[in-house]
Amino acid sequence: VLGRTYEREVCSAARALEIAGERWSLLVLRNAAFAGHTRFTEFQESLGIAPNILAARLEHFVADGIMSVTDGPGGHPEYRLTNKGVDFKPVIIALTQWGDRWAAPEGPPVVYEHNQCGGHVSSRLYCDKCGKSPARKDVVARSTEVLERERQRRRLARSRPRSRR
Amino acid sequence: VLGRTYEREVCSAARALEIAGERWSLLVLRNAAFAGHTRFTEFQESLGIAPNILAARLEHFVADGIMSVTDGPGGHPEYRLTNKGVDFKPVIIALTQWGDRWAAPEGPPVVYEHNQCGGHVSSRLYCDKCGKSPARKDVVARSTEVLERERQRRRLARSRPRSRR
Repeated sequence: VLGRTYEREVCSAARALEIAGERWSLLVLRNAAFAGHTRFTEFQESLGIAPNILAARLEHFVADGIMSVTDGPGGHPEYRLTNKGVDFKPVIIALTQWGDRWAAPEGPPVVYEHNQCGGHVSSRLYCDKCGKSPARKDVVARSTEVLERERQRRRLARSRPRSRR
Repeated sequence: VLGRTYEREVCSAARALEIAGERWSLLVLRNAAFAGHTRFTEFQESLGIAPNILAARLEHFVADGIMSVTDGPGGHPEYRLTNKGVDFKPVIIALTQWGDRWAAPEGPPVVYEHNQCGGHVSSRLYCDKCGKSPARKDVVARSTEVLERERQRRRLARSRPRSRR
């Protein structure tokens, strides 16, 4: 539906950032996911965001299937995360952990809890072979045949004679 | 050093986004973290990013302590992630998982591996009380005394008589 910011990228992280990487986007999702906000005025007042920017973000989230919108009491639209939107929670938690470690000298302003048992929830890297949580430096990326196929497809597209485009 | 985009926010995720939330920022960090890129031209050619934007991003990363810069062979500057920068790996992995799930119909273009054992690495939520990986919907946020203290401090600052500002 929308233009693609990182069109050249064959990368799932880039795809996620096209949906939620604009300024304010992840904070709007955070307030929907963790503060229970549903109404335009709730987001607007809590974030102090310009109304036109908030309107654009919410509109994109609905268009991208991250949020659904329904008429609430009094006809006010209510924005709620879909499963696709709730799935940004681990991204927000990972960002929070970075900030807790590097930008929260007085301690974490917010902690995440498991509402079934009250335990503290964190995001961890997990290796499915050795069962350990690997050190950051020991995690590497390996391209798959999906990436190779897409790169080959693009090379072919570029090498086609201009007259046949 | 730099202006704060989300000044009102008492939130570690917002702090992380002030460092890495601008357009292209996380993709530059991704290429530094997982593609081994160190030189301006490597980032520029791989991303197809405008040189002035890339220069601004790298400058901010160095100012924020996310990257260090040294003179490489031939005097070309080489940019490398510090520990503070490497710590964005889990954020990139979490974004990748979102994209793999919701925006990669042909499958993941890239997988993450533990270079010690070759196992597949993923990001998981973990509850330190029940030891389970909680469902997204069962993870809630709870504010701490750090947040309450900061809110009170701000209320007091706002209520001071204007003449004394």
